[in-house]
Amino acid sequence: MATKRDTTSHEAFTMKGGEGQDSYAQNSDHQRTGANITKNIMREAMAEKLDLQTLLLQNSCNTFRIADLGCSVGPNTFFTVQNIIDSVKLKLSDQSHEGRRGLEYSLEFQVFFNDHAGNDFNTLLKSLPEDKQYFAAAVPGSFHGRLFPESSIHVFNSSYALHWLSKVPKEIVDKNSSAYNKGKIYFTSEDKKVIEAYSAQFERDIESFLNSRASELVPGGIVTFLIPSVPPNSKNRFEANANIIGNVLVDMVNKGVISEELVDSFNIPMYMPASEEVKSLIEKNGKFRIERSELLLRLFTEQLPDVHSACMHMRAVWEGIFKEHFGEELVDEIFNGYEKKLAESTFLLDPSFKTMGQLFVIKRT
Amino acid sequence: MATKRDTTSHEAFTMKGGEGQDSYAQNSDHQRTGANITKNIMREAMAEKLDLQTLLLQNSCNTFRIADLGCSVGPNTFFTVQNIIDSVKLKLSDQSHEGRRGLEYSLEFQVFFNDHAGNDFNTLLKSLPEDKQYFAAAVPGSFHGRLFPESSIHVFNSSYALHWLSKVPKEIVDKNSSAYNKGKIYFTSEDKKVIEAYSAQFERDIESFLNSRASELVPGGIVTFLIPSVPPNSKNRFEANANIIGNVLVDMVNKGVISEELVDSFNIPMYMPASEEVKSLIEKNGKFRIERSELLLRLFTEQLPDVHSACMHMRAVWEGIFKEHFGEELVDEIFNGYEKKLAESTFLLDPSFKTMGQLFVIKRT
Repeated sequence: MATKRDTTSHEAFTMKGGEGQDSYAQNSDHQRTGANITKNIMREAMAEKLDLQTLLLQNSCNTFRIADLGCSVGPNTFFTVQNIIDSVKLKLSDQSHEGRRGLEYSLEFQVFFNDHAGNDFNTLLKSLPEDKQYFAAAVPGSFHGRLFPESSIHVFNSSYALHWLSKVPKEIVDKNSSAYNKGKIYFTSEDKKVIEAYSAQFERDIESFLNSRASELVPGGIVTFLIPSVPPNSKNRFEANANIIGNVLVDMVNKGVISEELVDSFNIPMYMPASEEVKSLIEKNGKFRIERSELLLRLFTEQLPDVHSACMHMRAVWEGIFKEHFGEELVDEIFNGYEKKLAESTFLLDPSFKTMGQLFVIKRT
Repeated sequence: MATKRDTTSHEAFTMKGGEGQDSYAQNSDHQRTGANITKNIMREAMAEKLDLQTLLLQNSCNTFRIADLGCSVGPNTFFTVQNIIDSVKLKLSDQSHEGRRGLEYSLEFQVFFNDHAGNDFNTLLKSLPEDKQYFAAAVPGSFHGRLFPESSIHVFNSSYALHWLSKVPKEIVDKNSSAYNKGKIYFTSEDKKVIEAYSAQFERDIESFLNSRASELVPGGIVTFLIPSVPPNSKNRFEANANIIGNVLVDMVNKGVISEELVDSFNIPMYMPASEEVKSLIEKNGKFRIERSELLLRLFTEQLPDVHSACMHMRAVWEGIFKEHFGEELVDEIFNGYEKKLAESTFLLDPSFKTMGQLFVIKRT
């Protein structure tokens, strides 16, 4: 019977590295489609909201610094970063008739790729685009804390990363708490106390994320982020997925493969906020103005052609945390069970279940 | 018989990663002693030569940026970087009576760890000191070219890295060249044409290194580097070592284990300059003033307690390039042969053979 491992800290959770068939690099089309859809929106937002005069000219700064937070191993991060650079260059060339010609030729870009220290940075750094026109650096550490010197970054991006919590809320693994999440690895809409604990952890995490970015941003700099969220009047697709895996684990307890305690001590350190939730947290924080907020309605619904692909995608994202807690030898059994149950379920085809991408462009006030 | 691999580019050459018994991390005491010896010299040099007024206050800059070039996987790079930070802090607190109190509390440090893209950055980034008081980033790429934006770094360091050439000089692997280095993997003092080719490559590399750093340094910034060199009136210990391995390879050709062509196409992409050689190249380049130059006479002579340790050290440094060219399956045989021949040789005990560390502190003019 497998023994307990500590997976209550976010540090343990990283995407599957390398470039193999089951790697994140090969199973992140989902995220990439999101990047494509958001490309034009981000370009527009940059064109409208980036005040290059303030950002560069007044600071006599010749370097434009970009950071992608929760970048994983590529290639999506490379497309996103290139899109930001292209947007800045476009804006610069548009402005060059205003007497600022020259800067577009001398401006240099420095890009910081951030993820947890356990991320496969070797794969990331070996696969940097050969023709990249920027200086690249990898930055290890949690984006819930400070990662960069004060006033040093012009544009932050984070795609599909802010729904990872910094840790599992402690109440839900505390046997003496009314929010103790026994026999489950996530929650359903009935588990009010568990939902509250998740929501409160998400609030703390967003707060520390925003505070850190506010310190690190150059005045006038912006943060763009894409976070999965649940739109109004929808059921939570992510929750449905997580509970299917939870059922697989309960089956494994019943078969004596793993202990009950091992399942009780495991919870998914992710939270899909409701659409309005993120907005109100940004407003409550008060350090940023929301310049743009878009619910990308068609983002997810067209992206899961079949059960196997859906399963491969979830495995690429989740395999690391399951391996850490349950042991490598059980991962195949868990995800095979998941695929089987997913095939029997109808929620993938049920339009009332949704998890959408919500894109924010926020600017330091 | 093993087949030929391309090892003419520096990109292929990285230290043995991970933390195992044969890793660079476990076999770099040699380099670490160098770092300890140079610690006080660097502190003195910083105290005397760093003009923090120019570096920080005039640029209204609150971030001090340090880059270690050719950092490998640690831990030596962490000690070196900490020494630089401590030196800057010491100088700041010395200056605080001069009415600049406050900066020592608000100054933030950002440290860039650079090595080739093939370096084991995962090991490096996972082993960053837990109590580090700086923002860390890893930067992949050759320090013979540009790695950072213009005027962005305050102090560069490079320890035991500049003797790696960007590539094997092309003449010595060209059958039609008078510098063709047949049957050897390095040179002896008789091989004038080969020496010339190595020396010319080293000159080109130092030139491009200095030009890149001159662009990247903040005005008033400094570069410290420690390079192995051969002091006046000494025999070249590195050359002796390299030729012992060369003899092992020739033996393997005679036994039919590898082809003659495989040995002819392999050359060590390192060059130990004479003490005066680096100095004259810096002067010729003209972008830096030499503030300090120290031949660390006692650095290497006390550091090789026995043949096995000496062999393990060379293996940690060289294993990568031998594996790349000759194949993993032959590496044990090569280094076992090397250890055997080294035990039979007397040069380790011969005081006329030397390779010393030469420390330079140079400042952008």
